[in-house]
Amino acid sequence: MRLIQAGDLAMLVAEKSKPFILRLQPGKELQTHRGSIRHDDLIGIAWGSQVKSHLDARFLILEPTLRDLLLRIRRRSQIIFPKDIGYILLRLSIGPGTTVIEAGTGSGSLTTALAWSVGREGKVISYDRREDMTDLARSNLERVGLENRVVLHTRDIEEGFDEQDVEALFLDLPRPHLYLSQVIEALRSGGNFGAVLPTTNQVSQLLAELEAHPFALVDVCEISLRFYKPIPARLRPVDRMVAHTGYLVFARKILPASEEEPESNHSPYLEPSE
Amino acid sequence: MRLIQAGDLAMLVAEKSKPFILRLQPGKELQTHRGSIRHDDLIGIAWGSQVKSHLDARFLILEPTLRDLLLRIRRRSQIIFPKDIGYILLRLSIGPGTTVIEAGTGSGSLTTALAWSVGREGKVISYDRREDMTDLARSNLERVGLENRVVLHTRDIEEGFDEQDVEALFLDLPRPHLYLSQVIEALRSGGNFGAVLPTTNQVSQLLAELEAHPFALVDVCEISLRFYKPIPARLRPVDRMVAHTGYLVFARKILPASEEEPESNHSPYLEPSE
Amino acid sequence: MRLIQAGDLAMLVAEKSKPFILRLQPGKELQTHRGSIRHDDLIGIAWGSQVKSHLDARFLILEPTLRDLLLRIRRRSQIIFPKDIGYILLRLSIGPGTTVIEAGTGSGSLTTALAWSVGREGKVISYDRREDMTDLARSNLERVGLENRVVLHTRDIEEGFDEQDVEALFLDLPRPHLYLSQVIEALRSGGNFGAVLPTTNQVSQLLAELEAHPFALVDVCEISLRFYKPIPARLRPVDRMVAHTGYLVFARKILPASEEEPESNHSPYLEPSE
Amino acid sequence: MRLIQAGDLAMLVAEKSKPFILRLQPGKELQTHRGSIRHDDLIGIAWGSQVKSHLDARFLILEPTLRDLLLRIRRRSQIIFPKDIGYILLRLSIGPGTTVIEAGTGSGSLTTALAWSVGREGKVISYDRREDMTDLARSNLERVGLENRVVLHTRDIEEGFDEQDVEALFLDLPRPHLYLSQVIEALRSGGNFGAVLPTTNQVSQLLAELEAHPFALVDVCEISLRFYKPIPARLRPVDRMVAHTGYLVFARKILPASEEEPESNHSPYLEPSE
Repeated sequence: MRLIQAGDLAMLVAEKSKPFILRLQPGKELQTHRGSIRHDDLIGIAWGSQVKSHLDARFLILEPTLRDLLLRIRRRSQIIFPKDIGYILLRLSIGPGTTVIEAGTGSGSLTTALAWSVGREGKVISYDRREDMTDLARSNLERVGLENRVVLHTRDIEEGFDEQDVEALFLDLPRPHLYLSQVIEALRSGGNFGAVLPTTNQVSQLLAELEAHPFALVDVCEISLRFYKPIPARLRPVDRMVAHTGYLVFARKILPASEEEPESNHSPYLEPSE
Repeated sequence: MRLIQAGDLAMLVAEKSKPFILRLQPGKELQTHRGSIRHDDLIGIAWGSQVKSHLDARFLILEPTLRDLLLRIRRRSQIIFPKDIGYILLRLSIGPGTTVIEAGTGSGSLTTALAWSVGREGKVISYDRREDMTDLARSNLERVGLENRVVLHTRDIEEGFDEQDVEALFLDLPRPHLYLSQVIEALRSGGNFGAVLPTTNQVSQLLAELEAHPFALVDVCEISLRFYKPIPARLRPVDRMVAHTGYLVFARKILPASEEEPESNHSPYLEPSE
Repeated sequence: MRLIQAGDLAMLVAEKSKPFILRLQPGKELQTHRGSIRHDDLIGIAWGSQVKSHLDARFLILEPTLRDLLLRIRRRSQIIFPKDIGYILLRLSIGPGTTVIEAGTGSGSLTTALAWSVGREGKVISYDRREDMTDLARSNLERVGLENRVVLHTRDIEEGFDEQDVEALFLDLPRPHLYLSQVIEALRSGGNFGAVLPTTNQVSQLLAELEAHPFALVDVCEISLRFYKPIPARLRPVDRMVAHTGYLVFARKILPASEEEPESNHSPYLEPSE
Repeated sequence: MRLIQAGDLAMLVAEKSKPFILRLQPGKELQTHRGSIRHDDLIGIAWGSQVKSHLDARFLILEPTLRDLLLRIRRRSQIIFPKDIGYILLRLSIGPGTTVIEAGTGSGSLTTALAWSVGREGKVISYDRREDMTDLARSNLERVGLENRVVLHTRDIEEGFDEQDVEALFLDLPRPHLYLSQVIEALRSGGNFGAVLPTTNQVSQLLAELEAHPFALVDVCEISLRFYKPIPARLRPVDRMVAHTGYLVFARKILPASEEEPESNHSPYLEPSE
């Protein structure tokens, strides 16, 4: 039986309410619209326990998953959602030890997931030209204890990236098509490029620029996530769902083909059957 | 410029053809329907280069991503697909250092992704009652160099798992609802449970059993992935797509509520807005 | 130029507001939260005109389409939605002159669409055991002038249908699997059967009963409708959408196979490629 | 019991095979890869019967539904699919007595559905600049006995439509945005406009032109249809589905707003909740 300790990151969940994520500190108290809970009443009990607020509302105490952290991030911008992040990590081949660049940082949801995945030996370098975003992301990373794996730059990537030869690079910017020369400089040959874009017009623009640069295996996709009401005798999808978060674009940086063999590098090699 | 070395795992991609994934060894040769390529002609050149077979067909040489490895796994059973695996990893909170149980092993696609994600400090324990499956998965793991992170058991999980207090446990079996007592024994309190199931009937059965055991935050979802033809001036989805791989079920193991407060632990706490 | 006349059914649409559908009558007035509009100010102007309320809010005046009528029906139950109704009409082969049975009537959305489609020479017979529903549907039909094409029965269909040899029969009831004998009695040989059901459990039950009765070409489907923000330079899907209305089940009533050739009539003949 | 008569349009369905649709004529014979069937053996038996070919393969004989006719149309171009046609009919408010223009005719699938729906009192006027298409559509219409409700024009619509004041107008052309002046001439004020387009770029172009012309209530959507394997104890979606047929665009023609109140007519009035 693992007991909750001071300093642990905990998630408190009440019925029909958004979960609270907090770092437990002796002497502190969580205030909710269903009553307050003293951290001291949580420290020392078992994970998975149920506790009551002073108003007798029941809360379940759990360690937040990576998905919980991403959904509850403090945000001042549109975040990238778990359904997309999970797939991005696989497509960019992010894992323990990876070095990856991201721009822009935004509120830091993808930053958090990248930092989580690369482990202590990996490195995430994240650029945003707005200092308020870099600050927000830093605070979000510190809250979950991942700040040591991330280098935050407050800078316009028009000036280029400081790094070279990185394994993967992801752009979450309104006009990624403007920065492909900078991407080429920073990404190693064969490296993984990705981007997320809300509109079809932006996707078309990025595709056109990817054709004009040494990239191959370009593809575009979108991911839908539909939840079901988890009632065994009346199983059915929920009534409403998210219709769109963004289109995902992926490509591999390649060495330019020699002059006598033009224009074959941009074509999709095979229709995806995934 | 990173050069390809003997012993590297490489992916060769030709136009309109499935990619080949191979471990490079001096003296060996890859045979394809578009001609053969000598490994020695690849060793020493740069990643992202284009090479030609003896029949003059052009191949691009890249490091396979985790998704490439999963799609090209040698299989003797239905595999779990990257779109689902990416989300499963986030929901089960798999990352460097995690210990996770999986059953059944099958061809080892999820096993591979788990091993990749937990890093050198993590551990994947995988059960399958069919020895041919355990053997196939082992060979697939060895091919990509991840076998050291995985313990493979050839055994029916009806007898229970050897491990206790694991952080996460995933079932990919036809009748997961039969094994929840075993899951409860192996999973730590607060731990993450997941399952994938092809039919709605199986989902209903599992949901009913989850209600009868100490689980909370149960939810069910399905993920769709739609690709687009990546042509800037004629952007549109591809003609056909995968309609279904499986339903995903997730839950948290909790401590049983005390007797005087029954049956509140199975209810969904809030409709998901993800 | 067609001018609006007293007695016309009109739809008034203001920006970011649900449309109003009303029958124009001299001397009357429409009250809205954006001000009132006198019917007399609409009678005599052209369809497609824009008018102003006494609070200076602009309204567009149009003839409602069938879809507008369906979406704005006064309802006391879940209605069937246009995306599903359009496909149901094609699958049941409803057109001018068709005779079709429906149960239950509910608020009358499908009833309205059936009545619209069968024309003056067709006939819709609709059953509901709740008189408040039959009354509501009648009032909805009268409002759009289609009541003459519909026979409304307030009765439990357990007792059977009054009609025989009808071309098509549609069930929108919680337990349609209980009434297949009655369906067989009323539907002509070769006739089209359909049903809509919210849960997977209900679909399984109905499929099992369809196998036990003389039906063939059984299939099940669901339809999704996703809207886009109609902005040329920023084309993208809307943020949220309806995730589920119901599963549609279709089948053809056939003559029972002779005894020596059992059980071939329930199998799907070919996977749909539509 | 309705018996099959000479001259009837019949559909013959064998297991795991596409259906055959044919007009029954005494003395004729249907040749299939599962053996031949004499029309005379069908005439006089009941609809919904099962018959055998000379090779002992079993066929079910049914009246084709409108959807069956549309899916089995002889085609020399991409057709519009039933899932889209059902919704188009509702959005354009097509019913008994409607007059509607369509361009281009193509193979005539939408033409067939429009002709079916408008009944004997309605009228479909269809334009295509390719005579081979007009001929194919005419032959398809004659086959199902709907040719009297359709006027086929072989002409480029750049020159305009012959008709005026029609209730609805649908474009299935690569560049509908070029013809909105012609549409405005032919469509009555308040009338329903629709178009189908395969790519997002075409949709953006059409939306831009709709903004520049007197249209309102513009919206864009796409419809997905997913089939399930109809097996009661193992209910699940089929493995693969159609990912895309086309985007649907709808709008109402309105009277131009007076000069002092510009640009409000093109905005969407409310996010669709259908």
